Amino acid sequence: MGVRKIEHIAIAVKDLQISIPLFEKLLGTPCYLIEKIEEQKVKTAFFKIGDTKIELLEATSSESTVAKFIENKGEGLHHIAFDVENIKETLSDLEEKGFKLIDAQPRKGAEGLSIAFLHPKSTGGTLIELCSSESENNQ
Amino acid sequence: MGVRKIEHIAIAVKDLQISIPLFEKLLGTPCYLIEKIEEQKVKTAFFKIGDTKIELLEATSSESTVAKFIENKGEGLHHIAFDVENIKETLSDLEEKGFKLIDAQPRKGAEGLSIAFLHPKSTGGTLIELCSSESENNQ
Repeated sequence: MGVRKIEHIAIAVKDLQISIPLFEKLLGTPCYLIEKIEEQKVKTAFFKIGDTKIELLEATSSESTVAKFIENKGEGLHHIAFDVENIKETLSDLEEKGFKLIDAQPRKGAEGLSIAFLHPKSTGGTLIELCSSESENNQ
Repeated sequence: MGVRKIEHIAIAVKDLQISIPLFEKLLGTPCYLIEKIEEQKVKTAFFKIGDTKIELLEATSSESTVAKFIENKGEGLHHIAFDVENIKETLSDLEEKGFKLIDAQPRKGAEGLSIAFLHPKSTGGTLIELCSSESENNQ
Protein backbone atom coordinates (compact mmCIF):
# COMPACT_ATOMS: atom_id res chain seq x y z
CA MET A 1 0.00 0.00 0.00
CA GLY A 2 1.02 3.61 -0.25
CA VAL A 3 1.92 6.09 -2.92
CA ARG A 4 4.70 4.93 -5.27
CA LYS A 5 5.28 8.23 -7.05
CA ILE A 6 3.59 11.34 -8.34
CA GLU A 7 1.98 10.23 -11.60
CA HIS A 8 1.32 13.80 -12.73
CA ILE A 9 0.52 17.34 -11.68
CA ALA A 10 -2.41 18.91 -13.48
CA ILE A 11 -2.73 22.56 -14.43
CA ALA A 12 -6.04 24.06 -15.59
CA VAL A 13 -5.62 26.30 -18.65
CA LYS A 14 -8.02 28.23 -20.85
CA ASP A 15 -6.43 27.43 -24.18
CA LEU A 16 -4.00 24.60 -24.95
CA GLN A 17 -2.91 26.37 -28.14
CA ILE A 18 -1.44 29.13 -25.97
CA SER A 19 -0.32 27.00 -23.00
CA ILE A 20 1.41 24.15 -24.87
CA PRO A 21 4.07 26.38 -26.52
CA LEU A 22 4.42 28.33 -23.22
CA PHE A 23 5.17 25.17 -21.22
CA GLU A 24 7.43 23.79 -23.97
CA LYS A 25 9.49 26.98 -23.64
CA LEU A 26 9.42 26.86 -19.84
CA LEU A 27 10.23 23.16 -19.44
CA GLY A 28 12.58 22.77 -22.41
CA THR A 29 10.76 19.59 -23.46
CA PRO A 30 8.04 18.96 -26.07
CA CYS A 31 4.44 17.99 -25.36
CA TYR A 32 4.37 14.24 -26.15
CA LEU A 33 0.61 13.56 -26.11
CA ILE A 34 -2.66 15.40 -26.61
CA GLU A 35 -5.73 13.39 -25.60
CA LYS A 36 -9.44 14.20 -25.31
CA ILE A 37 -11.23 12.60 -22.34
CA GLU A 38 -14.90 12.83 -23.33
CA GLU A 39 -16.19 11.58 -19.98
CA GLN A 40 -14.45 14.40 -18.10
CA LYS A 41 -15.11 17.02 -20.79
CA VAL A 42 -11.42 17.92 -21.05
CA LYS A 43 -8.58 17.92 -23.54
CA THR A 44 -5.21 17.09 -21.97
CA ALA A 45 -1.59 17.73 -23.00
CA PHE A 46 1.33 15.90 -21.35
CA PHE A 47 5.01 16.71 -20.72
CA LYS A 48 7.52 14.24 -19.18
CA ILE A 49 9.60 15.65 -16.28
CA GLY A 50 11.91 13.20 -14.47
CA ASP A 51 9.79 10.25 -13.30
CA THR A 52 6.57 12.27 -13.39
CA LYS A 53 4.51 14.42 -15.79
CA ILE A 54 2.81 17.77 -16.15
CA GLU A 55 -0.74 17.55 -17.53
CA LEU A 56 -2.40 20.65 -18.95
CA LEU A 57 -6.21 20.54 -18.81
CA GLU A 58 -8.50 22.50 -21.11
CA ALA A 59 -12.29 22.29 -20.67
CA THR A 60 -14.21 21.15 -23.78
CA SER A 61 -17.55 22.28 -22.31
CA SER A 62 -18.66 25.05 -19.97
CA GLU A 63 -20.08 22.28 -17.74
CA SER A 64 -16.65 20.71 -17.24
CA THR A 65 -15.31 20.92 -13.67
CA VAL A 66 -12.18 22.48 -15.21
CA ALA A 67 -14.25 25.33 -16.68
CA LYS A 68 -15.85 25.90 -13.26
CA PHE A 69 -12.45 25.79 -11.55
CA ILE A 70 -11.07 28.49 -13.90
CA GLU A 71 -14.23 30.58 -13.40
CA ASN A 72 -13.73 30.50 -9.61
CA LYS A 73 -9.96 30.48 -9.17
CA GLY A 74 -8.43 31.33 -12.53
CA GLU A 75 -5.89 29.26 -14.45
CA GLY A 76 -3.37 27.35 -12.35
CA LEU A 77 -2.57 24.20 -10.36
CA HIS A 78 -5.64 21.95 -10.39
CA HIS A 79 -4.81 18.55 -8.87
CA ILE A 80 -2.04 16.14 -8.02
CA ALA A 81 -2.15 12.50 -9.08
CA PHE A 82 -0.48 9.67 -7.17
CA ASP A 83 0.55 6.37 -8.70
CA VAL A 84 -0.61 3.50 -6.46
CA GLU A 85 -0.13 -0.25 -6.83
CA ASN A 86 -3.75 -1.36 -6.47
CA ILE A 87 -6.27 1.44 -6.82
CA LYS A 88 -9.27 -0.55 -5.50
CA GLU A 89 -7.47 -1.62 -2.32
CA THR A 90 -6.06 1.89 -1.85
CA LEU A 91 -9.52 3.46 -2.19
CA SER A 92 -11.05 1.18 0.44
CA ASP A 93 -8.02 1.63 2.71
CA LEU A 94 -8.24 5.45 2.47
CA GLU A 95 -12.00 5.39 2.99
CA GLU A 96 -11.46 3.36 6.18
CA LYS A 97 -8.93 5.98 7.28
CA GLY A 98 -11.57 8.72 6.95
CA PHE A 99 -10.90 10.13 3.46
CA LYS A 100 -13.97 10.95 1.35
CA LEU A 101 -14.08 9.49 -2.16
CA ILE A 102 -15.44 11.33 -5.20
CA ASP A 103 -15.16 8.04 -7.12
CA ALA A 104 -16.00 4.96 -5.05
CA GLN A 105 -14.99 2.84 -8.05
CA PRO A 106 -12.08 3.54 -10.42
CA ARG A 107 -12.92 4.84 -13.89
CA LYS A 108 -10.96 5.30 -17.12
CA GLY A 109 -8.62 8.30 -17.30
CA ALA A 110 -6.02 9.59 -19.76
CA GLU A 111 -3.31 7.25 -21.07
CA GLY A 112 -5.51 4.21 -20.34
CA LEU A 113 -5.05 4.47 -16.57
CA SER A 114 -7.62 3.57 -13.93
CA ILE A 115 -8.27 6.70 -11.90
CA ALA A 116 -10.31 7.90 -8.92
CA PHE A 117 -10.52 11.24 -7.14
CA LEU A 118 -10.57 11.94 -3.39
CA HIS A 119 -12.73 14.79 -2.09
CA PRO A 120 -10.66 17.92 -1.28
CA LYS A 121 -12.77 18.46 1.85
CA SER A 122 -11.05 15.43 3.38
CA THR A 123 -7.51 16.24 2.13
CA GLY A 124 -7.17 19.79 3.44
CA GLY A 125 -8.28 21.51 0.24
CA THR A 126 -6.15 19.69 -2.34
CA LEU A 127 -7.84 17.71 -5.11
CA ILE A 128 -6.08 14.33 -5.19
CA GLU A 129 -6.29 11.72 -7.96
CA LEU A 130 -5.16 8.11 -7.61
CA CYS A 131 -3.95 6.25 -10.70
CA SER A 132 -2.91 2.74 -11.57
CA SER A 133 -2.51 0.83 -14.81
CA GLU A 134 -5.49 -1.26 -16.00
CA SER A 135 -3.50 -4.51 -15.79
CA GLU A 136 -2.65 -3.91 -12.12
CA ASN A 137 -6.23 -2.99 -11.43
CA ASN A 138 -7.50 -6.28 -12.84
CA GLN A 139 -5.14 -8.41 -10.79
CA MET B 1 19.56 23.86 -19.83
CA GLY B 2 16.03 22.74 -19.04
CA VAL B 3 14.15 21.23 -16.15
CA ARG B 4 15.71 18.03 -14.76
CA LYS B 5 12.86 16.99 -12.49
CA ILE B 6 10.15 18.30 -10.20
CA GLU B 7 11.98 19.19 -7.00
CA HIS B 8 8.77 19.51 -5.00
CA ILE B 9 5.11 20.45 -5.07
CA ALA B 10 4.04 22.88 -2.38
CA ILE B 11 0.68 22.91 -0.62
CA ALA B 12 -0.43 25.85 1.53
CA VAL B 13 -1.97 24.73 4.84
CA LYS B 14 -3.31 26.56 7.87
CA ASP B 15 -1.84 24.30 10.53
CA LEU B 16 1.01 21.80 10.11
CA GLN B 17 -0.05 20.03 13.30
CA ILE B 18 -3.26 19.01 11.52
CA SER B 19 -1.85 18.61 7.99
CA ILE B 20 1.29 16.57 8.77
CA PRO B 21 -0.61 13.57 10.24
CA LEU B 22 -3.23 13.90 7.48
CA PHE B 23 -0.59 13.68 4.72
CA GLU B 24 1.28 10.89 6.53
CA LYS B 25 -1.96 8.89 6.48
CA LEU B 26 -2.67 9.78 2.84
CA LEU B 27 0.84 9.18 1.48
CA GLY B 28 1.80 6.24 3.70
CA THR B 29 5.18 7.85 4.40
CA PRO B 30 6.44 9.94 7.34
CA CYS B 31 7.32 13.62 7.23
CA TYR B 32 11.16 13.63 7.19
CA LEU B 33 11.91 17.30 7.81
CA ILE B 34 10.30 20.35 9.40
CA GLU B 35 12.13 23.60 8.66
CA LYS B 36 11.38 27.25 9.38
CA ILE B 37 12.35 29.69 6.59
CA GLU B 38 12.45 33.06 8.38
CA GLU B 39 12.98 35.05 5.18
CA GLN B 40 9.78 33.71 3.63
CA LYS B 41 7.81 33.71 6.91
CA VAL B 42 6.89 30.05 6.55
CA LYS B 43 7.34 26.74 8.30
CA THR B 44 7.73 23.80 5.90
CA ALA B 45 7.22 20.04 6.23
CA PHE B 46 8.58 17.59 3.66
CA PHE B 47 7.57 14.12 2.42
CA LYS B 48 9.56 12.05 -0.13
CA ILE B 49 7.50 10.62 -3.02
CA GLY B 50 9.43 8.81 -5.79
CA ASP B 51 12.13 11.19 -7.06
CA THR B 52 10.25 14.28 -5.84
CA LYS B 53 8.73 15.72 -2.66
CA ILE B 54 5.57 17.23 -1.22
CA GLU B 55 6.19 20.40 0.81
CA LEU B 56 3.51 21.65 3.19
CA LEU B 57 3.71 25.40 3.86
CA GLU B 58 2.35 27.10 6.97
CA ALA B 59 2.57 30.90 7.34
CA THR B 60 4.41 32.11 10.45
CA SER B 61 3.09 35.67 10.02
CA SER B 62 -0.10 37.20 8.64
CA GLU B 63 2.17 39.12 6.23
CA SER B 64 3.48 35.92 4.67
CA THR B 65 2.48 35.39 1.02
CA VAL B 66 1.20 31.96 2.15
CA ALA B 67 -1.22 33.61 4.63
CA LYS B 68 -2.45 35.89 1.83
CA PHE B 69 -2.80 32.94 -0.55
CA ILE B 70 -4.98 31.04 1.97
CA GLU B 71 -7.03 34.17 2.63
CA ASN B 72 -7.79 34.52 -1.10
CA LYS B 73 -7.97 30.94 -2.35
CA GLY B 74 -8.12 28.71 0.72
CA GLU B 75 -5.74 25.85 1.54
CA GLY B 76 -4.41 23.89 -1.43
CA LEU B 77 -1.81 23.61 -4.18
CA HIS B 78 0.49 26.66 -3.97
CA HIS B 79 3.45 26.24 -6.32
CA ILE B 80 5.55 23.76 -8.27
CA ALA B 81 9.35 23.73 -8.03
CA PHE B 82 11.65 22.56 -10.82
CA ASP B 83 15.17 21.29 -10.30
CA VAL B 84 17.51 22.98 -12.81
CA GLU B 85 21.24 22.51 -13.39
CA ASN B 86 22.32 26.14 -13.17
CA ILE B 87 19.76 28.46 -11.68
CA LYS B 88 21.50 31.71 -12.71
CA GLU B 89 21.79 30.66 -16.37
CA THR B 90 18.23 29.31 -16.35
CA LEU B 91 16.89 32.59 -14.94
CA SER B 92 18.56 34.69 -17.60
CA ASP B 93 17.55 32.23 -20.33
CA LEU B 94 13.89 32.31 -19.22
CA GLU B 95 13.93 36.10 -18.91
CA GLU B 96 15.21 36.30 -22.50
CA LYS B 97 12.35 34.01 -23.53
CA GLY B 98 9.82 36.47 -22.05
CA PHE B 99 9.18 35.03 -18.57
CA LYS B 100 8.91 37.55 -15.73
CA LEU B 101 11.10 36.92 -12.68
CA ILE B 102 10.01 37.55 -9.09
CA ASP B 103 13.63 36.92 -8.05
CA ALA B 104 16.20 38.26 -10.51
CA GLN B 105 18.89 36.66 -8.32
CA PRO B 106 18.66 33.30 -6.54
CA ARG B 107 18.17 33.34 -2.76
CA LYS B 108 18.35 30.70 -0.04
CA GLY B 109 15.39 28.33 0.31
CA ALA B 110 14.59 25.22 2.36
CA GLU B 111 17.09 22.35 2.51
CA GLY B 112 19.95 24.71 1.63
CA LEU B 113 18.87 25.09 -2.00
CA SER B 114 19.25 28.19 -4.16
CA ILE B 115 15.78 29.19 -5.26
CA ALA B 116 14.02 31.80 -7.40
CA PHE B 117 10.38 32.33 -8.33
CA LEU B 118 8.87 33.18 -11.73
CA HIS B 119 5.89 35.50 -11.88
CA PRO B 120 2.60 33.60 -12.42
CA LYS B 121 1.45 36.33 -14.82
CA SER B 122 4.03 35.04 -17.30
CA THR B 123 3.41 31.31 -16.70
CA GLY B 124 -0.36 31.19 -17.26
CA GLY B 125 -1.30 31.54 -13.60
CA THR B 126 0.97 28.93 -12.00
CA LEU B 127 3.55 30.03 -9.43
CA ILE B 128 6.82 28.36 -10.47
CA GLU B 129 9.97 28.03 -8.37
CA LEU B 130 13.39 27.07 -9.73
CA CYS B 131 15.85 25.25 -7.46
CA SER B 132 19.44 24.13 -7.61
CA SER B 133 21.99 23.08 -5.02
CA GLU B 134 24.38 25.76 -3.69
CA SER B 135 27.43 23.90 -5.04
CA GLU B 136 26.04 23.85 -8.59
CA ASN B 137 25.08 27.47 -8.25
CA ASN B 138 28.64 28.47 -7.36
CA GLN B 139 30.22 26.67 -10.29
